[in-house]
Amino acid sequence: MKLATYRDGSRDGQLVVVSRDLSTAHYATGIADRPQQVLDDWGFLSPQLQDLYETLNGGKARHAFPFDPGCACALPRAYQWADGSAYINHVELVRRARGAEVPASFYEDPLMYQGASDELLGPCDDVVVPSEDFGIDFEAEVAVITGDVRMGSTPEQALEGIRLVMLANDVSLRNLIPAELAKGFGFFQSKPATAFSPVAVTLDELGAAWDHGRVNLTLQSTWNGRKVGLCEAGPEMTFHFGQLIAHICKTRNVRAGSIVGSGTVSNKGIEVDGRPQWPKGYSCIAEKRAIETILDGAPSTGYMKYGDTIRIEMKGLDGQSLFGAIDQRIAPLHKG
Amino acid sequence: MKLATYRDGSRDGQLVVVSRDLSTAHYATGIADRPQQVLDDWGFLSPQLQDLYETLNGGKARHAFPFDPGCACALPRAYQWADGSAYINHVELVRRARGAEVPASFYEDPLMYQGASDELLGPCDDVVVPSEDFGIDFEAEVAVITGDVRMGSTPEQALEGIRLVMLANDVSLRNLIPAELAKGFGFFQSKPATAFSPVAVTLDELGAAWDHGRVNLTLQSTWNGRKVGLCEAGPEMTFHFGQLIAHICKTRNVRAGSIVGSGTVSNKGIEVDGRPQWPKGYSCIAEKRAIETILDGAPSTGYMKYGDTIRIEMKGLDGQSLFGAIDQRIAPLHKG
Repeated sequence: MKLATYRDGSRDGQLVVVSRDLSTAHYATGIADRPQQVLDDWGFLSPQLQDLYETLNGGKARHAFPFDPGCACALPRAYQWADGSAYINHVELVRRARGAEVPASFYEDPLMYQGASDELLGPCDDVVVPSEDFGIDFEAEVAVITGDVRMGSTPEQALEGIRLVMLANDVSLRNLIPAELAKGFGFFQSKPATAFSPVAVTLDELGAAWDHGRVNLTLQSTWNGRKVGLCEAGPEMTFHFGQLIAHICKTRNVRAGSIVGSGTVSNKGIEVDGRPQWPKGYSCIAEKRAIETILDGAPSTGYMKYGDTIRIEMKGLDGQSLFGAIDQRIAPLHKG
Repeated sequence: MKLATYRDGSRDGQLVVVSRDLSTAHYATGIADRPQQVLDDWGFLSPQLQDLYETLNGGKARHAFPFDPGCACALPRAYQWADGSAYINHVELVRRARGAEVPASFYEDPLMYQGASDELLGPCDDVVVPSEDFGIDFEAEVAVITGDVRMGSTPEQALEGIRLVMLANDVSLRNLIPAELAKGFGFFQSKPATAFSPVAVTLDELGAAWDHGRVNLTLQSTWNGRKVGLCEAGPEMTFHFGQLIAHICKTRNVRAGSIVGSGTVSNKGIEVDGRPQWPKGYSCIAEKRAIETILDGAPSTGYMKYGDTIRIEMKGLDGQSLFGAIDQRIAPLHKG
């Protein structure tokens, strides 16, 4: 099934079930008001939502209404947002551009940072940044929402805790990163609020494309109307979602409603005459700039400017949009 | 007023108002069920809770019951936990022990890391750690809970967003930190679930001890029954809470219910014959070990072992416990 929050001006909005083709929605009134409630009590509530979903898909839900992705979000806020960097090619590229090696441990121990989740952006919300000089970049990712996963769980056990899948735009402020990481405490101001897709879907919606913690589908990124990324999310994901969740679980429990991200989806390019190429494009501008640096000694592509747009979408095996699109515009901060 | 969550086996428990002397409590039924609701709608709900608080303090609340701090917590989960390192003396000590300088920028730009908040520990919950070899340490801190604070807010504006104050035990797994920070993404597995005091209190409860974003009171830390820390939380806090919140707000909004921590409360010791001493003790073992390293070339105090206890408490200007005590025991993980 497909779930979303309809935004009504309240902090948590209203839980809706969305039809498979994303054309209609239905309030889940009487079952649950908020997606967090469903994640808290999945065994009891999700079958009731599944029934409503089937009625909706059959065109028989009495109070169905047209679904507007601009009014929806997967979750308006969450108790955890932990983002991996599971595509090691992304790390290799960025490091190669600055002449650094990738430590051997990075192939066995996932990189992961703790993000903020008190305010999550909707799929069509502006990305508000106080200055263009911060180096505004998108990062197209796949993310999952978990149930409870106990401390000490194995990657296999952690896979059982995955409830929903969605897309993320983990906006990064590249020019703030070097000074911030030099302080030693990780990302903070360099990671503004993250946006997620209009709906989150259960694993059965992915069909055969859900492959043991990886999503074997193509992630599309369109920057200012130009398709810059058609990246395969599955085969080159070095650590699958079960491994990422188990990484969190090493020293603590993961509680229901935790969002775990894949990091920038990245594919190894072919090399032509010793020059790296991308057959599939890129899911963040930093990768394009890394390749430019490797080839030419310096990047030639700038980061995003106010008014720029970024659209992130993934189509299912049937060619239809699975999660709806993230479709955002970069905007300045208006001091109120 | 003083607020707490009474734990009833549900994920969010039940909001209670606690009397000033921490002897009795009263369910806030009819006003709000969860502290997050109050933080979401502070202007409307907090005066109603204040009325109940005054009735309770006057001994006239009809359904008051004896308050048991072991059944209470300030918040069972939160949308944000951001922890500063606002006592620069702590940073200076730890760096001096490893022969490193403190960069000049550290005196102007706060250190802060994003913590996990999907599971917060109650004040008497065991600190469960899979291995003693991880280097288990307590960190006694002051923390605040905010309302909404807009992106771009100044430290003065951010001060206006502080709703509640409490204590924290930000447990750290010291032996996991070096490898984790070397990866560049900050703390993750080295920071297990954080514990908070039984109650959170409004600023007026601190009286004159609330000094423009600092708490001019003594934080007591008692390790295995021995008082090891009597640290002044106010005067040596390099960055006050308004500055810490404004640091978060540089590139994003801070939303209601965000918890912001001070970092380990730390006082500069006097030097006797060129040897540092603490007149006031320490709020984490790492500081004791840092001094031992500076004096003797190596630490002699070990980290915490299973069965060790840590008690953290702060008394008000009247000598009474303000927040109740954090009182935890270190325990192994039982695989279920």
